[in-house]
Amino acid sequence: MVIALLIGRDEKEKKSYDWFIEDISRQLLNLEPSLDLRIWPDIGKTADIDFALVWRHPLGALKKFPHLKCIGSLSAGVDHLITDPELSKETPILRVMDPHMANDIVQYVLTYVLHDVKRVSHWEQRQKKKIWAKQPPFNFGDKTIGIMGLGFLGKKIAEALQFIGLNVIGWSSSRKNFPHLKDFAGKEEFFDFLSQTDILVCMLPLTPATKNILNHDTFSQLKPNACLINLGRGEHLLEKDLLAALDSKKLHHAYLDVFSEEPLPSDHPFWEHPDIHVTPHVASVTQPKTAVPQLLKAYKKLLNGEAVVNLVDLKKGY
Amino acid sequence: MVIALLIGRDEKEKKSYDWFIEDISRQLLNLEPSLDLRIWPDIGKTADIDFALVWRHPLGALKKFPHLKCIGSLSAGVDHLITDPELSKETPILRVMDPHMANDIVQYVLTYVLHDVKRVSHWEQRQKKKIWAKQPPFNFGDKTIGIMGLGFLGKKIAEALQFIGLNVIGWSSSRKNFPHLKDFAGKEEFFDFLSQTDILVCMLPLTPATKNILNHDTFSQLKPNACLINLGRGEHLLEKDLLAALDSKKLHHAYLDVFSEEPLPSDHPFWEHPDIHVTPHVASVTQPKTAVPQLLKAYKKLLNGEAVVNLVDLKKGY
Repeated sequence: MVIALLIGRDEKEKKSYDWFIEDISRQLLNLEPSLDLRIWPDIGKTADIDFALVWRHPLGALKKFPHLKCIGSLSAGVDHLITDPELSKETPILRVMDPHMANDIVQYVLTYVLHDVKRVSHWEQRQKKKIWAKQPPFNFGDKTIGIMGLGFLGKKIAEALQFIGLNVIGWSSSRKNFPHLKDFAGKEEFFDFLSQTDILVCMLPLTPATKNILNHDTFSQLKPNACLINLGRGEHLLEKDLLAALDSKKLHHAYLDVFSEEPLPSDHPFWEHPDIHVTPHVASVTQPKTAVPQLLKAYKKLLNGEAVVNLVDLKKGY
Repeated sequence: MVIALLIGRDEKEKKSYDWFIEDISRQLLNLEPSLDLRIWPDIGKTADIDFALVWRHPLGALKKFPHLKCIGSLSAGVDHLITDPELSKETPILRVMDPHMANDIVQYVLTYVLHDVKRVSHWEQRQKKKIWAKQPPFNFGDKTIGIMGLGFLGKKIAEALQFIGLNVIGWSSSRKNFPHLKDFAGKEEFFDFLSQTDILVCMLPLTPATKNILNHDTFSQLKPNACLINLGRGEHLLEKDLLAALDSKKLHHAYLDVFSEEPLPSDHPFWEHPDIHVTPHVASVTQPKTAVPQLLKAYKKLLNGEAVVNLVDLKKGY
């Protein structure tokens, strides 16, 4: 088996992922000591490559592997991969669907939902002023959290929020009919969903249909004094519309983990905005220890013609 | 039915609870429009009083009600009540065991456990410096949370933390044998429990056996770089031992909702300590809307000789 590891659009970006590449290589060689591992740009003979593991690969590089049997995305979202215009439509793509990453995401969403609901910033400000501000409201436990995207991760998040007694609704492209979750489906029910939402959590995959979906029209349908948590992709959000919604107090806060340009440029207005929390795309970072065995196993199943849950549907785009 | 409402040790403290007294009165009169409600100090004829609802009542006041059938504590903890040296040992005491308050507590614990585990302060500091610090560790999801006190609330907290994939152990005065929770019991297993704990959550009732239990010896048994969350009572904590443990970096942070003197005096060192979060006893504030019907219902059951789950065991002290 010959595996190519392609990380970073260019050598500069690759360098920022040194820790990641090292860890993945270690996990691969642990599992397959006889593996022939090629790390881009030191790929050697391109005709040798069976399987490519990628995260923001150099665009166009994959078409140079004539015998490539499969591509493994080292992330749950595959927009970084399938937007490569030179990608073959024939090669099957696997994506990470890792229960550890799911826990990370669930925990991230709960962290910031609760940061808002339990008024952490409010109490911190009172503490700075040494004010014992024991006056209601003590929390906003009756807020409704609206989750956009009810796939594997969105569903887990909804269940965790419900488990701790919070109100949750969901929206998705198709009807889910989960037994305990009020869900809305499709464009025609989108504004209905928004009109009942206080805290909007974006868990959508990035597709042409979801690009820029977090925009002025969307924000204007939310309940007053709403809040945004974006864990999808930066391209879901129209940044200037968010700034306007915060200015006008339509939204009171935003928690953002993804940005249309990453790393977020140092002169970007989000960094200093008092009503924005910025985290550097860490809500769910692929853990090589769990992701690598999973992708290897799925790859072998695929070769044997077995069913594989984490196969990407190129028609849907995720 | 004649109910007396006694809130605040003295008139000054009572004044700080005006919003609470108003809300409780409204709920009571909603449920029992013909109720004769007496609000301390305007008690009228003391021999009339059947039932007293109390939160930090004026010490000694209850013994003046010769026909008192029952006392209802407007909080889950009853130390504020049973430490009154003039309290009759014959009068049954009910305490609030409210699922809404339980949700509040569970949410509070998760808020601050996750604040620590997901490194919220770390990312906030990086944001202030406009640093895109995408380097591991991204979180501390492998920390072990040790819950002291496995009653109604402690158990719910353990279940919620486990539900989101965190490691939980528990310690209690008696063996619980919950199916999915590693629990330690009694003094002899206390240090064992501590030695496996990264985040110590105190949910204990305040009794002579638990007073000052959060002290130097306790902290010194914890895993390195540990963290404390105290939702019990201020008297569980030896404040100078906490300050020393933070100074020596044995503990890296403390989240405190309760204090031996409340309101926390404005010159108290906790207010300005960079490694302490202070919240003004708001983790669980009695919600009259749910607590009042519950206490009334339990009182009526008690009068009918029916079993009541929220009866206080004076021998145990909670």
